[in-house]
Amino acid sequence: MREKLTVIKVGGKIVEEEATLQQLLDDFAAIPGYKVLVHGGGRSATKLAAALGIESKMVNGRRITDAETLKVVTMVYGGLVNKNIVAGLQARDINAMGLTGADMNVIRSVKRPVKEVDYGFVGDVKQVDAELLGDLIHKGIVPVMAPLTHDGEGHMLNTNADTIAGETAKALARLFDVTLVFCFEKRGVLRDENDDNSVIPAITEPEFKQLVAEGIIQGGMIPKLENSFEALEAGVNEVVITLAAAISQPDAGTRIRKSK
Amino acid sequence: MREKLTVIKVGGKIVEEEATLQQLLDDFAAIPGYKVLVHGGGRSATKLAAALGIESKMVNGRRITDAETLKVVTMVYGGLVNKNIVAGLQARDINAMGLTGADMNVIRSVKRPVKEVDYGFVGDVKQVDAELLGDLIHKGIVPVMAPLTHDGEGHMLNTNADTIAGETAKALARLFDVTLVFCFEKRGVLRDENDDNSVIPAITEPEFKQLVAEGIIQGGMIPKLENSFEALEAGVNEVVITLAAAISQPDAGTRIRKSK
Repeated sequence: MREKLTVIKVGGKIVEEEATLQQLLDDFAAIPGYKVLVHGGGRSATKLAAALGIESKMVNGRRITDAETLKVVTMVYGGLVNKNIVAGLQARDINAMGLTGADMNVIRSVKRPVKEVDYGFVGDVKQVDAELLGDLIHKGIVPVMAPLTHDGEGHMLNTNADTIAGETAKALARLFDVTLVFCFEKRGVLRDENDDNSVIPAITEPEFKQLVAEGIIQGGMIPKLENSFEALEAGVNEVVITLAAAISQPDAGTRIRKSK
Repeated sequence: MREKLTVIKVGGKIVEEEATLQQLLDDFAAIPGYKVLVHGGGRSATKLAAALGIESKMVNGRRITDAETLKVVTMVYGGLVNKNIVAGLQARDINAMGLTGADMNVIRSVKRPVKEVDYGFVGDVKQVDAELLGDLIHKGIVPVMAPLTHDGEGHMLNTNADTIAGETAKALARLFDVTLVFCFEKRGVLRDENDDNSVIPAITEPEFKQLVAEGIIQGGMIPKLENSFEALEAGVNEVVITLAAAISQPDAGTRIRKSK
């Protein structure tokens, strides 16, 4: 039997505020076994950009990344946020190592082609090489991944953290039994969006289609779940959508599973 | 016989300007065998600090690092400068990996005690663990080290790049035959500071003492050479002081050697 590995994706908000960061690191440290942390950092990037007089432009929730903005996200995601997490995990005896996709050539991407929108220096993931990452994980290293990749031609590229988490989970699924956890602002996928206690504990793809048809699952949750089923198809064992505060609780949130 | 490894330290000026950076990366890529790059980034840090309205205070050439300055250097050294180098080396088929001392707990330091000067969040190196680094190097990874360490209690610390290079070279000397190369603005140690062609090709410690007594070696070169002899005492095979442009030339610069 293959060994278990948990890939946790946390958004910027949680890792950028000191109190929530410390709690997250405690919770992350408590997760047993092999693990990987993927983080965002958008709020800090927006804040630094503003302090430097650089306007943050978002389209469909994605940051338009011109040359100056690329410098900002490289500093904030790859430097400030990443190293604070790494130092915080080291203080908890977790042997963390910060990475972008450029480091050890782990994630190579291509600059997003200009269609209706020119996103600038934004990368679409092309290739993940998880072999050396897998070796390090087996030696007790905990990778901490920033939402940055490279194009193999000398340029860093800004890359969505959910995508980094999904692609890394898929690549590591060749080596481990992977659970991919997306931290969410709600306790999971809710049957009634006004009732935080209406968490659906588990969903298979036929159930998902049924819940969409019934109008129970709607809006931004639909692509999130579609991406989750795609990760399962690509070999990930299980996808979990849960509160950041619940990442070390084994049965919290909604578990997205393959149909038997 | 042990395998050879070259640790190259380059200052900020070279890695912060696009033209000199590209040339340096070409030259670094041309160095045969195992290698490590240690970089500075002070000019970019000063520039970012100024843009953010943070005053850069230097004492004896060292940056006073308050909490806001620590954020700046973490962003600039660990993010901007480090990742630009890593992406640039990847484009040259060098499998680079960026690191601070916090990553894989490679370099742990202690916050410098306050004596005449309070340097703030500046680290004095306490312990280097080069074992995992050595494993990665044997697998073809080229570490690119930023001048940052951590205290093991969750804090990053600003740390002199020459010190990072020296301590890393010493630690790796337990595993490899290490040559430590300090890039310098002159072609090496000069017999006549007004004659760039008066490079002293090799110096042993008795010769160094003689040259100091004769007044030929003076000023800032004295501690640089003292540190070099200390590295030799600690197991480093050879220390070279040379121009950045000459790092791939095997006989350039001044070679500091143990006396027979």
